[in-house]
Order: sequence, then structure tokens, then C-alpha cells
Amino acid sequence: MIPKGFLFSTAEASIKKPGRKDLALIYSEVEGNIAGRFTSNKIKAAPVKLDIKKIKSGRGQAIVANSGNANACTGRKGILDAVDIVRLVAEGLNIKSSLVYISSTGVIGAPMPMERIRPEIPKLVDGLGRSTIKDVAEAIMTTDTFPKIVTRKVRIGSKTGSIAGICKGAGMICPDMATMLCFIMTDISVNQKTLDKSLDSAVRESFNRITVDGDRSTNDTVLIMANGMLGNSQVTEKSGSYPIFKKALSEVMLELSNLIVKDGEGASKFVEIEVRGARNVTEAEDAAFAVANSNLVKTAIYGCDANWGRIMAAIGYSGVTVKEEKVDINFGKIKIVKNGLSTGRDREANRVLKGKDTKIIIDLKIGRSSAKVRTCDLTEEYIKVNAAYRT
Amino acid sequence: MIPKGFLFSTAEASIKKPGRKDLALIYSEVEGNIAGRFTSNKIKAAPVKLDIKKIKSGRGQAIVANSGNANACTGRKGILDAVDIVRLVAEGLNIKSSLVYISSTGVIGAPMPMERIRPEIPKLVDGLGRSTIKDVAEAIMTTDTFPKIVTRKVRIGSKTGSIAGICKGAGMICPDMATMLCFIMTDISVNQKTLDKSLDSAVRESFNRITVDGDRSTNDTVLIMANGMLGNSQVTEKSGSYPIFKKALSEVMLELSNLIVKDGEGASKFVEIEVRGARNVTEAEDAAFAVANSNLVKTAIYGCDANWGRIMAAIGYSGVTVKEEKVDINFGKIKIVKNGLSTGRDREANRVLKGKDTKIIIDLKIGRSSAKVRTCDLTEEYIKVNAAYRT
Repeated sequence: MIPKGFLFSTAEASIKKPGRKDLALIYSEVEGNIAGRFTSNKIKAAPVKLDIKKIKSGRGQAIVANSGNANACTGRKGILDAVDIVRLVAEGLNIKSSLVYISSTGVIGAPMPMERIRPEIPKLVDGLGRSTIKDVAEAIMTTDTFPKIVTRKVRIGSKTGSIAGICKGAGMICPDMATMLCFIMTDISVNQKTLDKSLDSAVRESFNRITVDGDRSTNDTVLIMANGMLGNSQVTEKSGSYPIFKKALSEVMLELSNLIVKDGEGASKFVEIEVRGARNVTEAEDAAFAVANSNLVKTAIYGCDANWGRIMAAIGYSGVTVKEEKVDINFGKIKIVKNGLSTGRDREANRVLKGKDTKIIIDLKIGRSSAKVRTCDLTEEYIKVNAAYRT
Repeated sequence: MIPKGFLFSTAEASIKKPGRKDLALIYSEVEGNIAGRFTSNKIKAAPVKLDIKKIKSGRGQAIVANSGNANACTGRKGILDAVDIVRLVAEGLNIKSSLVYISSTGVIGAPMPMERIRPEIPKLVDGLGRSTIKDVAEAIMTTDTFPKIVTRKVRIGSKTGSIAGICKGAGMICPDMATMLCFIMTDISVNQKTLDKSLDSAVRESFNRITVDGDRSTNDTVLIMANGMLGNSQVTEKSGSYPIFKKALSEVMLELSNLIVKDGEGASKFVEIEVRGARNVTEAEDAAFAVANSNLVKTAIYGCDANWGRIMAAIGYSGVTVKEEKVDINFGKIKIVKNGLSTGRDREANRVLKGKDTKIIIDLKIGRSSAKVRTCDLTEEYIKVNAAYRT
């Protein structure tokens, strides 16, 4: 169910190559509250720099996005191009430029082909309502192999609103988000501060807890727009409906982030790494990410080899507090390491890895904190995709 | 030229599988000074734990090493096994146990097959002098495709001594050393503190500045033994010959560490990443390692794609001080980025990558510090080697 008042449009500007929709517009019939999170990379793409300024107002009505070019490392021209696209969209929609957000994904360092983008913008605006949310999800794909859409109905008081999210991303996926664009729309009226806070906690458990290859992008963006067209009394942190909204948002974002890992470049398996018994949450995360980012662990998983030695080594260099003689490791239900030593159940654990979906649980037995990180295996296909991506 | 007074031996204990020499012994006819460096991984293999204690004496006469089993994550039995091997070797050589060092490399978490190792030790001792340094270098290989040996003559006063080093390592190669064993022998008489200090600076520029896959092992060990049989007046920090010795040792170790990168699992290209103009050396190293460990950069290099956007992204998330609009990037002699912007010379830069040996120079133009890190590309072969290694 698409939230009320949101319209979609896509167009083809042949930004990288012809033959696909590569421009998308999301528009809300009314202005709404907006919140966002952006890459922690110090090198930020032009659209990210722009959005970071805009978001301070907490208000928005449209998002224009493109694939094929990241508009990153493009200097002053990159900024001017992004400003220009925003202005053209705002003029077409007859709204203030400050209400239009912009996101780009694709190759870094190439100038935006403005001569091809400019003429498409009037068509993009005119086309509003003629595309579906799926068309938008497809238009922002790069190496993604499928569009990523999650929707959820949410009961707020006596009314039923909806949250719909789309995202893209398959490589450069790591903590602090990915080359990952995620746009979330809801018709539920939510106070801006509450929206921001809900987004924060949802991002922390979803996009900040996935990794495909340990690389962090210049363009990561999550935007949520709440247009209030459901007509509910506004959700604030004090509302009874706040936990309901927050939970639904977290679920939508968790599901979206899982779709990204499942579409990890060349991935053949989805793996959840859970670290328990850590001294604190940061250490649980650090240990889980060290394991999830280890090429040796990821290739072993690909080879269906329950090579727990590589897991122990990764925990050992993660910097967290660990006592070798306390560590337990499970592959699914098979305990393969107990108190730092092999249980001899390697063959059973190998069998667990034959599945598409694996859970590895590491118990440090030092403290009470835990964290779950989701990743995928590392395959020859990842190399092929990334050795050939730009050419 | 092999340093005077060093003898070698190898034997076959079928530690992992039959058909290859997997036990090696290095023995000096006289006791000498010894210094060492060990993995920073918190999970340390049994032989590493043992050596860390032994090295406090600064004295040594023999090194026993095996491939096929890392004797890591093997608990109390692992320690007892390592002690046992050391004791048997010492008894055979008729020297004190405290003078015998031990190193292991191979699979983590499997018990040492002592029933096959024990009977080989007398043969190992008896065989001293019947093997070459190359035999030893081969016996400690795991996924290595060639033995790694570097020797150098060194003029000390009126005498000519020699430094000979061997090492193994191909995967799990990252800062703070690799699954990397390195044994260095010299007949030059060197004061123990001076030896330790020379080793420290050599390791910092060599083994601590290479990376294959970002994984750090439980077993990394560098040992240097100086038996003084050259009969020179002992080198101390105040000797005129100190800088000569130090430089020669650094060169031997740099060359050895380069051999490891060249033998990087599945590597097809050797790449030196130099970061200049950083605020300090730590930041130069951090930036260089972020680039060198980026799977996206490494696959692009494999694909001969001078994808400098991925380099910018890696610098951006490395956490170092960087101003996008200052960064210059060179592929060999081709300046591909100037002041953060493309120079449009991508095709020429791609051509540079077609060579086996590439230099990427990143100038941050923020400060005056620099660091060089050496790495290799990431290929399908790496995946194959590591998906299949244990099985």
C-alpha cells in the first residue's frame, strides 16, 4: 500500500548509457516533515552536501534522484549542477527549491551530463503519477540485480497509514551505510523531531549493521518524508502511537537493508553474525564487523567450510576484549567451538553452510552486550562485477 | 652467501598430508643474540606464546618450525605440544631448551599430530647440514607458490659478513605482519639491544607496511639470530658500522616482504600505494592502508581500470585529514586527479595498470608526512584459493 499523496515519475537521460530509466522523482502533494542521514565519508558527493544543508529546515516535498553518475569528486561544477537540477525540478513543480532534495549514485569523478539531463526534467515533472514506486526503485539501481521495495501498513489510533521504502545498493556496503540510497515515504503525520529520532534508531540497527565489502561510499543517503495526509493527530515522542510507528519504521528499514545484503555483489549466501557476551555494544559491533569484513571468513563461507580458525583470528585482531579460552562459536545450531576449543563437529557445521541463509553466533562470555551484523559471502562473481563495473 | 655457522635440516612428518617436507630446523653452531617481533592479534598461537617468554633472555641457538598446522586455538594441549617439541629438539642438540625457538603455520584449531611429529625430531636433528636454506624456506610454505629467500653481503670494518633471511606468507597479510614467518640469520656480531632496535625499524618499514587481504594472523613471527661468527668487534648503536648493518637488514626485510606481496594469494599485480602530504605518518599510513585494503580498489586494479573515485572514497572513510579540493592522484607518471578533479587522462592511466608493477601516488597536500604500503590486486584466484584451502 502506497502512502497517500505520493506520486512518482521516471525518465531516461542516458546518463551513463541509453536504454534505461535513470532519473526519478518522488513528489508529495503537500509539504511534509523530512529527516535524513548521510554518509560519514569525509569525501561527500555534491548532492549530499546540498541535502545536508536543506535538511536543517526539516521540511520537504520532493526527491529527485539519478543513477549512472554519483556527482562526487566533481568540484564546484558538481555543486552547480546539483543546484541546477533542484532548481529546474522546483520550477516545474512550482514549489520552493528548498523543498526539493537530490540524490545521485553511480560513477565517481565524471561530470554530470547536464546537456542530457536538463531537457528530461520537464518530462520528469509532467510524468508524475504515470510511474509506480517500482519504476523509481528500478531507476536508481546500479549493480543491483533487483529493485528493493518494502511497504507496511501501520495502525495509528483509528486510522491505517502506511510506510513505503525503496533503496538501492549492492557494493561499497559497510557500516555507516553503503552506496546506498534509501527513500522512505509515509502518510502518517509525525512531528519532525520524532521523525528524526525514529530514523536514527532504525538506521543504527539496519543500514549501519550491514556490510558487503567494507567500503563506505561518498553518496549514502537515507531520507524519510512524512506528509501527514493520513490526517492522524501528529505522532510525537509522547504519543501512544510512537512506539508503534517507530517499530514499523525499524522493520521496514531492517527488511530493506537485508535486501541489500541479499543482493550483495556476487553474493551466494546471506550470513548473520551475532556477537554475544561482549563487554559493551561497541565491542560487540567491532567484533561482529571484523568477522563480517574478513575476506578469509567470507571466502570460507562461500566454500562451505566452517573455518572457525579464521573467525577466531578476526576476533583477535578486532581489538575487543576477548579471552580465547572462553569463546563459543555456533554455526546455526551446531556448536563448533566450546571454550576456545574445537568440538570436532566441523562436518556438521559445513553442512549448515550449504544453506542460503546462515547464522553464526559468537559468544565471548565476557559481558552482557550483543550485536547482529549481516553480510554475504565473497565469490568470484564479486571480482568480476567490480573489475568490469566502470568499463 | 649463507652466514657462517648456520646449519639446516628438514623432515617429513605428514602434519597435514604426506608427500612434502613440513618440519624444519635452523641451528647455529654457537649460541647467539636473538630478537623477535610477534603478532598483535589478541588470539596468539601456542608457539608465539612460548617464544614471547623465551625472547626476554635475548639469547638463542635454534629455531624449529612446521607448516600444516598453526597450533593456534589448541588450548593447554597446544602449549604442552610446543614445549614437548622444543624439549625434544633441545635434547637432540644437547643444548638448553631456553635456546630453542618454535614457529608454526597452517590450519588453526586442529591439535598437532604429535604421534607423527615426535618420531621425526631425531631425524631432523641428525640431518643438520644435509638441507639447504631453500629446503627450509620450502618446508615452511603453506599457500605460498615459491620459497622466499634474500641474502646480502655486508662489509663490517675489514670483514665481510652476511645476512640471510627466509619467510613465508601469502594470505592473512596485513599491518602488524601476516601469517608470516620470517627467520633471519647473520654471522655479524651485534649487541642484543642494537639487534632489537634494528629489527624494530626494519619491521616497521617492511612487514608492517604490506597487506594482501587485511586479515592478521595468530602466528606472525619474525626472529633474527646473530651468532657473531664473523668475529667482528660487536656492533652497537655507537659503532660506525651500525648504520651499515641497519640499512642492510632493512633492505633484506623490505625485499622479503615484497616477495610476500608478489606471492599474494591469486595476485596478478604488485601495487605500491604512496600517500604524501599527510598531516603525520600515522595519517599517511592510515590513508594508504584504507586504499590498499579496499576490495573495490583492488578489483579495479585487477580490471586495469584506473577507478580513482574508489581511491577518493577510501581516503574519505580512512578517517584522515583530507580536503577533497587539494588531492592529487598519480598512476605511475600519469596525473589522473589534480586538486580533487579528473584530468581526463583515464585511458593513459588504465594503460599504466596493464603492467605487473604499479605505483599509485596520492598527495593530500595537507602536511609533509608520507608512507608507502605495498599490496596486490584481488582476483578470482584469491577466492578459489581461500574457498578451498582447508578442504
